[in-house]
Amino acid sequence: MDKNPLSAGFKLGFLGAGQLARMSGLQAFRYGIQIGVFSDREENEPVQFITPHSQTGSFDSVEDMSKFAETCDVLTLENEFISSEVLKQTQEQSGTPIYPSPASFALIENKLIEKKTFEEAGIPVTPYALIEGEKDLEAFGNQHGWPYLLKSSKGGYDGFGNEAVASLEEANKAFDTLGGNKGHDIIAEAFVEFTNELAVQVARNETGHVVYPCCETVQEDHICVAVKSPAPVNPSIQEKAQELAVKATEAIDGKGIFAYEFFLKPDGKLLLNESAPRPHNSGHYTIEGCVTSQFENHVRAVMGLPLGSTELRASAVAMVNLLGTDKRDAQVDNALDALAKADGHLHVYGKLDSRVGRKMSHYTMLGKNMEKTYSQAQKATSDIRI
Amino acid sequence: MDKNPLSAGFKLGFLGAGQLARMSGLQAFRYGIQIGVFSDREENEPVQFITPHSQTGSFDSVEDMSKFAETCDVLTLENEFISSEVLKQTQEQSGTPIYPSPASFALIENKLIEKKTFEEAGIPVTPYALIEGEKDLEAFGNQHGWPYLLKSSKGGYDGFGNEAVASLEEANKAFDTLGGNKGHDIIAEAFVEFTNELAVQVARNETGHVVYPCCETVQEDHICVAVKSPAPVNPSIQEKAQELAVKATEAIDGKGIFAYEFFLKPDGKLLLNESAPRPHNSGHYTIEGCVTSQFENHVRAVMGLPLGSTELRASAVAMVNLLGTDKRDAQVDNALDALAKADGHLHVYGKLDSRVGRKMSHYTMLGKNMEKTYSQAQKATSDIRI
Repeated sequence: MDKNPLSAGFKLGFLGAGQLARMSGLQAFRYGIQIGVFSDREENEPVQFITPHSQTGSFDSVEDMSKFAETCDVLTLENEFISSEVLKQTQEQSGTPIYPSPASFALIENKLIEKKTFEEAGIPVTPYALIEGEKDLEAFGNQHGWPYLLKSSKGGYDGFGNEAVASLEEANKAFDTLGGNKGHDIIAEAFVEFTNELAVQVARNETGHVVYPCCETVQEDHICVAVKSPAPVNPSIQEKAQELAVKATEAIDGKGIFAYEFFLKPDGKLLLNESAPRPHNSGHYTIEGCVTSQFENHVRAVMGLPLGSTELRASAVAMVNLLGTDKRDAQVDNALDALAKADGHLHVYGKLDSRVGRKMSHYTMLGKNMEKTYSQAQKATSDIRI
Repeated sequence: MDKNPLSAGFKLGFLGAGQLARMSGLQAFRYGIQIGVFSDREENEPVQFITPHSQTGSFDSVEDMSKFAETCDVLTLENEFISSEVLKQTQEQSGTPIYPSPASFALIENKLIEKKTFEEAGIPVTPYALIEGEKDLEAFGNQHGWPYLLKSSKGGYDGFGNEAVASLEEANKAFDTLGGNKGHDIIAEAFVEFTNELAVQVARNETGHVVYPCCETVQEDHICVAVKSPAPVNPSIQEKAQELAVKATEAIDGKGIFAYEFFLKPDGKLLLNESAPRPHNSGHYTIEGCVTSQFENHVRAVMGLPLGSTELRASAVAMVNLLGTDKRDAQVDNALDALAKADGHLHVYGKLDSRVGRKMSHYTMLGKNMEKTYSQAQKATSDIRI
């Protein structure tokens, strides 16, 4: 971009209208810029409430997205589900740059290519194999043990698009369910024994890169329910995770914000489990927990601005996800304790409808001691119903 | 309000579309709520870029504002220039509560009533008198010395609506200029010798009140150019200023966020100089500098939520106002140093047009030592042109 991004009317466009784009947009506003949003949903999405510039259309349509792109100075994404080819053509047709770049997306949209890319960069990944049929299913189980995971190589998150299989019969069935019999690439991944799940965010652009502290994610049923930063593991392990995260971002020439999830094995070794080319739930704590949040650095990165400090603001930062508890009009009940707590910070995403397990809100608490801070955050939010 | 403010579609309406409402709105969004804006300007105002819900009309029209109020759950203001009577009728006609209340505004919209209210509450104010003609002008000069200040009792800020007068001739002229000959209430205020100008913000609602640290405002030509928090004065003076600020808020039964500016006299005594029933430039530093910003507590206060901690996040916080340097399309040039500084935070208000002296942006820096932090903040921003 030749245009100074800090100029009147500069517009950052988001492909996707959920809470990740919303929280990024709120940081974009601090720079005086405007935001636009493109979604395949008509209205009432979190970002559509914070801008007069909304367009709707199909994420498969270069035409639709180019029309939107032409109204923006730069585009970014809040998910990894738009085809890199569609992004590339949108960028070409509109002349509006997209970050992360379509070329970066091409390296991570397919789990098989992603794993190969990271492996070639010297980053240990969970054992995997391309599965083309029953023979491969059986061989993988024999080599790595049952159960193991089958994943569609495109589009999974939070456990969707994944199936754990404990026998060849289950494996054959899951292979079909995931689309293996329709020609979709299916990969098998071994279950890895681990002591902790860790995550690191990296922001990077032409001005350089910054790396966030290594945090721990607490998962239940493949959904992140809480985050502790810094992770309660040896500092040398934290540094190793940060190093691998930077290496991974470089391997895909990433421009934007990226998150990496690792398994920490009992022997102290790290395996890269998942990557995300966008703000990530594991980094929500950075809004208050770090000098510059993942959302602000996302915006800075795609606008080509220098990146901000990722230093922690407190020695212990705990984040609790507040998932929907009921199917109803969204409403946060019993939040007064959480709001009244010193250095406890509530964020609500503005979704109109709640349903059980839906990501609706989160709560971050800063403190001195991790176990105390984490338990206070849990206690302050335990009665909340959404 | 009976409605839970943390419920889907709750809407906070702002009367006024400038940077104070914009920064408040950005905090409102963190609670998932929606905002609306009413302005007498058609478009392109800072808040109009961050919401799809804009209405325009006259601030003198109960009809116009009631129509807007009916679309909102609660209304608040970003200035003190709407008549309390119009606010009262708007509240009655629409049924939508307004905070601060029209009754509070009735006590502060007229400088004479305001000063009497605060005096009766035991708060020392700068020496003043109602001026009805030449005889009063002369008597005030004889009693308090020349020069002194003449102020229109309604509508002044940042030096507008004020005139310093050094002689009876100047006083007579200013009396007419300020509308004294048209029946406007004019008051005289003595120039007060002071060593520092201090400010304190207070948030208050039915759940209680919180008071911000006492900060120092650095003024040039009646415009605040910088703020240091905590103020580099004796802690007992800081506490006294906080105590007076709380007392003043109680005196007007204030619900919302309020700012008070004090003169610190050479003898260590404080005089209340100005009050503002809204977020104030002296409190911009609280966005990063305090656990809960003035904007977030503004939103919490008018939504009836418990108020957040006002504790400082660093031992020294300095804020520099970045005023327009040129008449042109707004554009922040030479900001890369400021962005690259650790714990330096740039905010740009999104105004499309810059002009010399216009409030366009500010920069906050957190540090350990005040003089060092203040000089770093000045240095990091000294080349910025807007």
